[in-house]
Amino acid sequence: MTTMELLRTAKACAPCLAAASTEVKNQALLAMADALEAHTESILAANALDMEAAAEHISSVMLDRLKLDSGRIKGMAEGIRQVAKLPDPVGRVRQSAEHPNGMVIDRVGVPMGVVAIIYESRPNVTSDAAALALKSGNACVLRGGKEAFRSANAIVAAMQKGLAAVSLAPELIQLVQDTSRASAQELMTAVGYVDLLIPRGGAGLIRACTENAKVPCIQTGTGICHVYVDKDADQEKALKIIENAKTSRPSVCNAEEVCLVHEDIAAEFLPKLHKLLVQDRQVNPVELRLDARAAAMIPGKAASDTDFDTEFLDYILAVALVADVKQAAAHIAKHSTGHSEAIITEDQAAADYFTRVVDSAAVYVNCSTRFTDGGEFGLGCEMGISTQKLHARGPMGLEELCSYKYVVRGNGQIR
Amino acid sequence: MTTMELLRTAKACAPCLAAASTEVKNQALLAMADALEAHTESILAANALDMEAAAEHISSVMLDRLKLDSGRIKGMAEGIRQVAKLPDPVGRVRQSAEHPNGMVIDRVGVPMGVVAIIYESRPNVTSDAAALALKSGNACVLRGGKEAFRSANAIVAAMQKGLAAVSLAPELIQLVQDTSRASAQELMTAVGYVDLLIPRGGAGLIRACTENAKVPCIQTGTGICHVYVDKDADQEKALKIIENAKTSRPSVCNAEEVCLVHEDIAAEFLPKLHKLLVQDRQVNPVELRLDARAAAMIPGKAASDTDFDTEFLDYILAVALVADVKQAAAHIAKHSTGHSEAIITEDQAAADYFTRVVDSAAVYVNCSTRFTDGGEFGLGCEMGISTQKLHARGPMGLEELCSYKYVVRGNGQIR
Repeated sequence: MTTMELLRTAKACAPCLAAASTEVKNQALLAMADALEAHTESILAANALDMEAAAEHISSVMLDRLKLDSGRIKGMAEGIRQVAKLPDPVGRVRQSAEHPNGMVIDRVGVPMGVVAIIYESRPNVTSDAAALALKSGNACVLRGGKEAFRSANAIVAAMQKGLAAVSLAPELIQLVQDTSRASAQELMTAVGYVDLLIPRGGAGLIRACTENAKVPCIQTGTGICHVYVDKDADQEKALKIIENAKTSRPSVCNAEEVCLVHEDIAAEFLPKLHKLLVQDRQVNPVELRLDARAAAMIPGKAASDTDFDTEFLDYILAVALVADVKQAAAHIAKHSTGHSEAIITEDQAAADYFTRVVDSAAVYVNCSTRFTDGGEFGLGCEMGISTQKLHARGPMGLEELCSYKYVVRGNGQIR
Repeated sequence: MTTMELLRTAKACAPCLAAASTEVKNQALLAMADALEAHTESILAANALDMEAAAEHISSVMLDRLKLDSGRIKGMAEGIRQVAKLPDPVGRVRQSAEHPNGMVIDRVGVPMGVVAIIYESRPNVTSDAAALALKSGNACVLRGGKEAFRSANAIVAAMQKGLAAVSLAPELIQLVQDTSRASAQELMTAVGYVDLLIPRGGAGLIRACTENAKVPCIQTGTGICHVYVDKDADQEKALKIIENAKTSRPSVCNAEEVCLVHEDIAAEFLPKLHKLLVQDRQVNPVELRLDARAAAMIPGKAASDTDFDTEFLDYILAVALVADVKQAAAHIAKHSTGHSEAIITEDQAAADYFTRVVDSAAVYVNCSTRFTDGGEFGLGCEMGISTQKLHARGPMGLEELCSYKYVVRGNGQIR
């Protein structure tokens, strides 16, 4: 099927899912999970072909992300079963008010309709995204990366068998068959067919969506996250938090990329930071990229112009001195991608200023930026982390994949 | 100033307003209201010039919309004072949760930043929109219609004096000085400068935004609203509601444009409808545009192909017969603009089906579509009525002019 044909069928069967009960949706999710496990063999065979084709031109890290085994497929099935346990956002009354004339005005959660997701190589995103879309009552059109195409096709085929087993239309979950840029462009401009587009990927994809999307779109992902160590920081706390934010998983979007240090404590704090992240680290020492004043205090590479605007996703940390919390906030306003920022301070006034003024999806006081995550925030799951301000901000759970409508019940009221 | 210069100054002073206290914002609103009244003379002089220039080429209805007098200016000032009384959405904790590790995770309302509003000739929109933007912590850039340009300039100048009186930057409220299409286009594409664009106007403007906007945008306004009279309707209720929905104010977007009637009761109901809306109405009788089956039952004009897809905004009602609530919902799905629809029935199952399946901003049971309004829904005000599903749906109040961020307070937590 062409991408447009596939969108038309998605649009046609979306209303049926929107009206489906929680019970039917949960049965579908359990059937999808069972079908995934039952088709382990065909999925692994498809994955082996993907691995073989990709081996020549992608890195070993990427190859590892692409690789499936029966344990990983079991994990994907478990993920789907977890989604079945989450509360249903559709039909939930978010607010209710009684008009003086007696009408009851409810604000009720409803699906968006058709959600399209553009993502890259990890095959588990295929099942995660499909499960979240289904539970939130949305038909989904998935457009995965070229490298994982055979795997994604096998995963979708299995999940479609699960849908059919509970008499739901298999077309509620579909994979775009064209992995060229043209199909991404088609999704971005399919006005009337795509009710929500979620691009999950690098800065280039996000930019292409901003530039070209005519359908409603939520930008996700890129994170140049800052940790600001204030004059009144508990320095031991600061060190523990920075070590966690920078090194626990540097390849993710909520990892720290920039450390800002109050100039009054820099001479004392920076040597401790250097000892922790460089000197004492046997494995994966962090490369520090220092502004001129920091470079005068500890060893490290001189920061280039672009280092404060780069998502390293690696064991690299840019470090700069600032005069106070105001200058820290100003630096963040200029360089941040609006994802996650933290202040380390015992001064309530500084903390209050920082949380009020810093305009990012998540603003932390005395804890690690690594917590920006749907699971950690109590959403139970995550379709991505929005870095825009319209509709959803930060981790997107089931509720954020929905819209609402007003349902007004009366008894003959007129205005 | 060019539109771009004006956007740059708006962007520069927005953070200061975002951090302003409720008290400061309320003082500003009261000062703006006072300044409007104090400048009644200069505003009326500017309005007289607008009226003179417009007299030659716009209708008397439009001229009346454009005209100001001291009573209308007093009304605008009162409107601003009402906004000062509304609760502040900025800083409001919308949700709060405690992480098992002790962190407190708050979801807090924050302004969008710079809100741009494109609207047409009524001068009072200038002060309404500015007041709502200010209270929600947003700098606003207003782009009014050509006909009201001098009036809007005088109104903005007065409001800016109010801002200055409480030491806020006058540039928080600005009027685009170019009323050609080029300036609307500039607002639609000012990525990084416009955080939210609200086009308020006809279908052409909304289409232009869908086609061209690269900034976050909320579509408002067009309403092809349906009232479906079910087999089990209380027909007296139905007549009262249709009379209200169609004739109480036909020029507004929540007025009824289409009446769908269950075929089993049509022979009984349609003559009553004709008597009420045509025969017995001395002033402004309604023109009925009937599908073939309705035309066989009562007098009226034959409906053309486009009549079920037209926002008449006039004393005109399209009428069609349907087989049941399912066919009514299907007709609405095909022809509605997603604004407001009503079912009149005493059958709970039909009402439940209609409210579950009809996907519009407001869905009514046994009451008039005319209630879709921020004031009626308890929002206290209204910046427009969103007919899209992303971010805000239905009447947009102060809360809908905001985004949110997560503020997470801890004591050294790491992941």
